[in-house]
Amino acid sequence: MDNKSLTTGGFTLPGEAGYEELTLQLAKKWGADVIRDSDGTRLSEAITTSGYEIYSTLCLIRADNEWAKAHPDKVQQCCIMSQPVVAGSDGVTIDLLNGYFWKQFRINSDDDPHEWWQVFDRTTGEEIATKDWTYDPAVGVVEIVNARKWHLYTVNFFCYRIWEEISMYNHVTNDWGDREHLMPIDPIHPEAQERILAYLETWLDEHPNTSVVRLTSMFYNFWWFWGEHPKRRFVVNDWGSYEFTVSPPAIRKFEEKNGYRMKSEDFVNAGLYNTSYKVPSAKYRDWMDFINAFVADFGRKCVDLIHARGKKAFVFYNDHWIGLEPWGDRFKDIGLDGIIDGIFSGFETRKVSGTKHVQVRELRLHPYLFPTGVNGAPSFLEGGNPTLECKTYWIDIRRALLREPVDRMGFGGYLHLVCNHPDFIDYIEHLAQEFRMLRSLHDGDSPYTADLEVAILTAWGQMRAWGCCGHYNRGNYYNEVMESISGLPVRVRFISFEDILAGGIPAGIQVVINAGTVDDAWSGGEYWANPKIIEAISGLVNSGGGFIGVGEPSALRHGCQYFQLAQLLGVDREVGLTRAFNRFQFDLAENPQFILEDLESDPDFGADAGNIYVLDQKTQVLAAMGRSPMITFKNFGEGRTVYLSGHKYTPENVRLLHRAIFFAARAEERFGTWLPSNVRTEAAYYPGHRKLVVVNNSPELQKTDISLPGGTSIHVDVEGYGCRILEV
Amino acid sequence: MDNKSLTTGGFTLPGEAGYEELTLQLAKKWGADVIRDSDGTRLSEAITTSGYEIYSTLCLIRADNEWAKAHPDKVQQCCIMSQPVVAGSDGVTIDLLNGYFWKQFRINSDDDPHEWWQVFDRTTGEEIATKDWTYDPAVGVVEIVNARKWHLYTVNFFCYRIWEEISMYNHVTNDWGDREHLMPIDPIHPEAQERILAYLETWLDEHPNTSVVRLTSMFYNFWWFWGEHPKRRFVVNDWGSYEFTVSPPAIRKFEEKNGYRMKSEDFVNAGLYNTSYKVPSAKYRDWMDFINAFVADFGRKCVDLIHARGKKAFVFYNDHWIGLEPWGDRFKDIGLDGIIDGIFSGFETRKVSGTKHVQVRELRLHPYLFPTGVNGAPSFLEGGNPTLECKTYWIDIRRALLREPVDRMGFGGYLHLVCNHPDFIDYIEHLAQEFRMLRSLHDGDSPYTADLEVAILTAWGQMRAWGCCGHYNRGNYYNEVMESISGLPVRVRFISFEDILAGGIPAGIQVVINAGTVDDAWSGGEYWANPKIIEAISGLVNSGGGFIGVGEPSALRHGCQYFQLAQLLGVDREVGLTRAFNRFQFDLAENPQFILEDLESDPDFGADAGNIYVLDQKTQVLAAMGRSPMITFKNFGEGRTVYLSGHKYTPENVRLLHRAIFFAARAEERFGTWLPSNVRTEAAYYPGHRKLVVVNNSPELQKTDISLPGGTSIHVDVEGYGCRILEV
Repeated sequence: MDNKSLTTGGFTLPGEAGYEELTLQLAKKWGADVIRDSDGTRLSEAITTSGYEIYSTLCLIRADNEWAKAHPDKVQQCCIMSQPVVAGSDGVTIDLLNGYFWKQFRINSDDDPHEWWQVFDRTTGEEIATKDWTYDPAVGVVEIVNARKWHLYTVNFFCYRIWEEISMYNHVTNDWGDREHLMPIDPIHPEAQERILAYLETWLDEHPNTSVVRLTSMFYNFWWFWGEHPKRRFVVNDWGSYEFTVSPPAIRKFEEKNGYRMKSEDFVNAGLYNTSYKVPSAKYRDWMDFINAFVADFGRKCVDLIHARGKKAFVFYNDHWIGLEPWGDRFKDIGLDGIIDGIFSGFETRKVSGTKHVQVRELRLHPYLFPTGVNGAPSFLEGGNPTLECKTYWIDIRRALLREPVDRMGFGGYLHLVCNHPDFIDYIEHLAQEFRMLRSLHDGDSPYTADLEVAILTAWGQMRAWGCCGHYNRGNYYNEVMESISGLPVRVRFISFEDILAGGIPAGIQVVINAGTVDDAWSGGEYWANPKIIEAISGLVNSGGGFIGVGEPSALRHGCQYFQLAQLLGVDREVGLTRAFNRFQFDLAENPQFILEDLESDPDFGADAGNIYVLDQKTQVLAAMGRSPMITFKNFGEGRTVYLSGHKYTPENVRLLHRAIFFAARAEERFGTWLPSNVRTEAAYYPGHRKLVVVNNSPELQKTDISLPGGTSIHVDVEGYGCRILEV
Repeated sequence: MDNKSLTTGGFTLPGEAGYEELTLQLAKKWGADVIRDSDGTRLSEAITTSGYEIYSTLCLIRADNEWAKAHPDKVQQCCIMSQPVVAGSDGVTIDLLNGYFWKQFRINSDDDPHEWWQVFDRTTGEEIATKDWTYDPAVGVVEIVNARKWHLYTVNFFCYRIWEEISMYNHVTNDWGDREHLMPIDPIHPEAQERILAYLETWLDEHPNTSVVRLTSMFYNFWWFWGEHPKRRFVVNDWGSYEFTVSPPAIRKFEEKNGYRMKSEDFVNAGLYNTSYKVPSAKYRDWMDFINAFVADFGRKCVDLIHARGKKAFVFYNDHWIGLEPWGDRFKDIGLDGIIDGIFSGFETRKVSGTKHVQVRELRLHPYLFPTGVNGAPSFLEGGNPTLECKTYWIDIRRALLREPVDRMGFGGYLHLVCNHPDFIDYIEHLAQEFRMLRSLHDGDSPYTADLEVAILTAWGQMRAWGCCGHYNRGNYYNEVMESISGLPVRVRFISFEDILAGGIPAGIQVVINAGTVDDAWSGGEYWANPKIIEAISGLVNSGGGFIGVGEPSALRHGCQYFQLAQLLGVDREVGLTRAFNRFQFDLAENPQFILEDLESDPDFGADAGNIYVLDQKTQVLAAMGRSPMITFKNFGEGRTVYLSGHKYTPENVRLLHRAIFFAARAEERFGTWLPSNVRTEAAYYPGHRKLVVVNNSPELQKTDISLPGGTSIHVDVEGYGCRILEV
């Protein structure tokens, strides 16, 4: 740790042509070493030659709109299910794009609708024979004959996406008026690949001062259908779904490789599509694998060009990230130098900090320097408070950074927007210094971490480690747990049901957590009908491991229970058909309980699963809401299970989860090292540096005692949002 | 109406030997015309010859315990699923009665277990081959070999029921010590039939003063498994289930008649059994029909004997009522003269008052004269307040009696318990007079009822009209709606999905209500996948009818929606897999809305379905909880739908439902006749008598204005719990 590194470096500033003075002034104040452009801004030569490293954003698939316009059939596509229409007679007219934003889509009838589309009677679930429907391209309408009155009909159809979504979002958000709509071209076409590579060559020629090509991102955006009605501006928005990779050409290539053809309904799934919430089918996993292989392969070609010019290639872990899968096996093959993500929270921080096979991991913090935040906050508008916004995100990010560092931080957007917010300008200077200080603690050192490995079990597993459906998933049990655990001093990994089926529970795992809602990908859905899963987890717990279920763990309507691990958990959930059953009347466990020790009041999980009941006296109930237990545990064999009827990321619940993990692992005796007495504070100890970091996750001053090895403790006062570093 | 009938008659008093003076004194004070005995009490000759009509209780199947003891294989049975056991190795030992009350059951191994029982691996759902399990009758244990470790195993086995449940309940509740346990004999055996008829003949000889034989009831009790552990005294309790009719002999007879054999699993259904909440399968409906035919047939033989002695036969619509189905087609064939039910509420009142083919309908009110009520209330114990208990039940019963009368009321139990409650004695005198007064209003007259027919659609239909799972089902959408509607001035009927499949929606119905939870019998479960149901209801609404959905109406995971009538309702419910979807952002409808007009505050439905979203702008939202609509409507064709996210029986919600019915029927203009302004009061007008009854359903004095035809209104003050009768 040298002092210089604490005031300068690891900071990416968004520059802005026309604001050269501001750019350089803030670059100095904030200790930037890199200046970047953003979507909507550009850098002038005064900036690019100012001696700073330059990141230049480049979105290859929307970079050459002339080519896109000249090749309308090479534009990216997707498959859409029309909004359901009720048959009022034996003829039904379906206006395909009704409800969808017509500026986003152009119906694709280049690929024969009768070959590629499917029409369904959703009331019966039957597909309508092609002879019974026709498409009229003049009006974008499907006419169905021989319909059954009052049945519901939908059409799965293919569309070109004629306005690249991120560009559309920025355009609309910032009122770009008649600026041309950019279109995304699809590199699945060899002609598009050729064009992208040629464009990249030229672009590299034209950007001699660029040190890092900041790819935003690779080729396929996350799924984002927009709506026509102002009251439904967005129809669906899923950070993890591959819907925007789907097109007849891609399906043909998939068929060549995999030997079978995906149908439109494999993607549409009666309107559920393949969201992150849905347990991925085997076919869909094949599709993802196919796209991932393609992205890695063509991505490598782009990166090689960049490297050939002596520049580095960083990728944005967002926007067009689909197919990249940075936690997957092929990511290393692409050869990227760095990864950057725009994040709000601890779990997203861990997603970046844990990415392997890159030299640089960078966080782009929020608020983005746009008038309005992506969460709708009036960040830099009248009434906005960007400093407070930033602080509230930072306390969640910081606790994750205490566990695992990243290399850089930065911002994006229109720099000039900060001018009216001098407190923001000062705060970012402070934040950047704190960031560098925390980063420096990881130099040649690692924070104290309990010798305890926790696995979060989902249908996605490591592929979507520290990911969910997007930025905001509050109230989702899995996401809340992930956020809480992102700052805990335990080892965390993500495993999938397929992992267990392939090789059992990986060695070393002491506690498995399953947190979700029935049928969702986080809980696991149909996987719970597979005896191998039951056997593996029962075996783990029986031999001394722990299992923590949150919300509806192992839930499935199957067999004689709803929680398929009810026999381990000792609780189950009543979901409507067993109300005639009387339930075991539990008493709250009498002895003070390890798990609850730091709770100041009754536990509050926010959304509570409810209607939980205990099976018998072997289940200990620690807390309940009326007659529905909230926190229970049960000994099973040599191990233990804990059930939590919900989880909400709050200081008290973070501690509760921390304790529950140790309790489930029967590791209570090992609990408490470097633990603050005050749950609004957290601590991390770096033994190599002999430094103890104590952070305050609240706006108010907090007094706290940190337990030291040997049984003593040290008292610290930490100001609101503050961070204290002590030599111990 | 003559005055005498207002002070005497229509009242059944429970007499008690040893308290002759009290019996006759209260008979006079309360205006009784009948004295009865109860389970646990008997009448002395001083009472039976006192000039009052005498009801004598008789439970034929537990009447002759000597015969039962001599014929242990003729005792009633049931099929039980053992509590699930986890295999810790490849051998599993299942103690069959573990968790169940051993005094209630004796395992039946007279009928070969390997022929009749079934053992399941509930983890895989597979049945275990008989070669892999053995039963040891010495210890009541099944041993399974070749088990799969960590799988869950259960045994379906048959038991004799060696302690008749109602008798057991009374025995335990009243501490009857070493009084002999009575056993229920099964009339499915011809020998038992013979014995019952012979016993009845003798009994009739021995009861010359008895005018009415009060059968308690026929042959089979509702389902009631007791538990071993004091914390789970009852395992399950379902007023409507046929589980206690099940035995190998009955299954053999069923097979002779129906040509196929029911298996144990047809009854056990992986531990769900066939509760009232479960949509009845075709097989189970066959079974009910078989038992119903048997009960009607043998019941007729018993009734004929009673009639032959010039006595009347009344039946208790509870306890051993299974197979009787008073709302079914065969009930008339039995020839019963009267029906009596112990009730707490309005819906139960309508169940009795609407029973056809009997001359006398009688309510047995609560509290029962037992120290403790069946709801656990300390009725006549220290701390009990039987007067208040009775009042709170009475206001719910009374509003139903305003719509449809019964002939009699009464009490049961130990009369002497009232001695310490002089206020109760006075209150019952008052209540009996009020009862007679209200009854008299129906003489030659009917209350004003709107020309509007409402059908409640469930999987049970008319067979279980005004019935649910038992007395207490608070929080159950269907039950709450039924309770509210039991006092409304509209015509109500109950229809089943099978009715619709057989003949469409019966003519005359203007509004259909579906209130329930996904997969339950009240909502309809799999029936909603049947297009004929969708077609019928869509057609009704399209041509001007109304549909009201409450909670999870038409819910099923099927097709492209969760509510299968989402296209009519304009709302659907998010249940976990579509969280990535953005929803139409509704505003609350601006104009004052007919449905909400009498609400004094925000609607409160108690349990709210939650996670409701509107499909588009065609749905009008009248009230919402956060972003989840609570009350919506939508025009569809000529008709209209209303969605309510829950319902709780409260004065405000009764009015809300009342208005919703008229609104759905587009009959707003006809609304308001004889309507009180104050929702805590209700009114009924009897045009023949020109009498207007205004009741106060609250403990406090209420001021209210009743709208009269012609647009005027009349003001009335009604004391708490009170009733005013006005000449209009």
